[in-house]
Amino acid sequence: MRLTIVLFDGFTALDIVGGYEVLANVPGMEVEFVSDRIGLVASDTGRLGMAAYRTFDQLDTTDILYVPGGPGVAGALGNAALMACVRRLHPTTAWTVSICNGAEILGAAGLLKGKKVTTNWFARAHVAAYGALVGTERYQRDGKLITGAGVSASIDAGLFLASLLGGETLARTIQLGIEYYPAPPFGNGTPDEQPQAAQDRIRHVEQHGAQRLAARVIPF
Amino acid sequence: MRLTIVLFDGFTALDIVGGYEVLANVPGMEVEFVSDRIGLVASDTGRLGMAAYRTFDQLDTTDILYVPGGPGVAGALGNAALMACVRRLHPTTAWTVSICNGAEILGAAGLLKGKKVTTNWFARAHVAAYGALVGTERYQRDGKLITGAGVSASIDAGLFLASLLGGETLARTIQLGIEYYPAPPFGNGTPDEQPQAAQDRIRHVEQHGAQRLAARVIPF
Repeated sequence: MRLTIVLFDGFTALDIVGGYEVLANVPGMEVEFVSDRIGLVASDTGRLGMAAYRTFDQLDTTDILYVPGGPGVAGALGNAALMACVRRLHPTTAWTVSICNGAEILGAAGLLKGKKVTTNWFARAHVAAYGALVGTERYQRDGKLITGAGVSASIDAGLFLASLLGGETLARTIQLGIEYYPAPPFGNGTPDEQPQAAQDRIRHVEQHGAQRLAARVIPF
Repeated sequence: MRLTIVLFDGFTALDIVGGYEVLANVPGMEVEFVSDRIGLVASDTGRLGMAAYRTFDQLDTTDILYVPGGPGVAGALGNAALMACVRRLHPTTAWTVSICNGAEILGAAGLLKGKKVTTNWFARAHVAAYGALVGTERYQRDGKLITGAGVSASIDAGLFLASLLGGETLARTIQLGIEYYPAPPFGNGTPDEQPQAAQDRIRHVEQHGAQRLAARVIPF
């Protein structure tokens, strides 16, 4: 089974790595990273570089298409090769996954009309604008579509998909392998329960994602 | 403040990215990835490549030294430049961090004698052999030493360190930014509570980490 992870400038690394770390450990899984060029792609901090070794136009099919989010989504929506690749691959997949505001990419590709999805808490309106039925779940399934909430939710969404691929015992074994028995130092909750000041701060950072990306370049 | 993340062949990606995603969002943090060569370093799956842009011998000081784990730790222990870098940097740091069995690297560098630490559940005996007082905590602090348990514990350890760097409000704000309100599909717990068959399976995989690395190469 082939897992195709999409990279674009300004992706959020944990959107990818949480789900990757789970799904790459499903027996028989082959993982590939694709982008519009072969070589390094910079995350949203401009300090973490991840390697793509296939280009979008080299792909006609895959088994699992995995689309992360990040402040780079705004740019990705204008990337014709990326959008064409998502549209071309989706009909061939067994599963199509988005994490965080990566759901906007699926939405812009026309894949979310009338679909139950989840996304990053501050991207809900954007995703709903594509005709999706956006909830507040940590992960969601609608047919072959698996969507995760923000960033670290990629782990939960990945474990959920692992259970669909290989059963609960496999998912629990991978959970042990990545020692996912979370204990946030300041407790759990939901995004909507957090103080307004914290929500405002994060929204401000996200709304200025493009400038943030422009100001930070990976030092190669 | 400078965060120096150590890369070596066969690192586990989530050991790095969980803590990175938290700490890179601390205001004023500059992140660098270092290895024994400039360029791509392959994770334990041989399919995720991350970029190093400084070499060990270019570094004399840092503020936060961050050492991940993975099946590549066995090889890292025999990497003289890596071990020398850890020994050289540690006296200069404000904080020294290990995640997962990355604690073995700190132990082999002689930094853990009599120190309270945590590590991956199946690496406890190895770390204790270096004179460390190994517990079962998700994260632990002893002086300037911060240690995290396995893989995904890098998120919890990162948030804990973020609170030490900038206070609880900052840590909670970053928690919202990475939407870390975990909901593992099959519940929480501890590694020690998991079925023996799952523990045996993971131990088997880990004990064969070297062969696993040799069999998988990143396709460049």
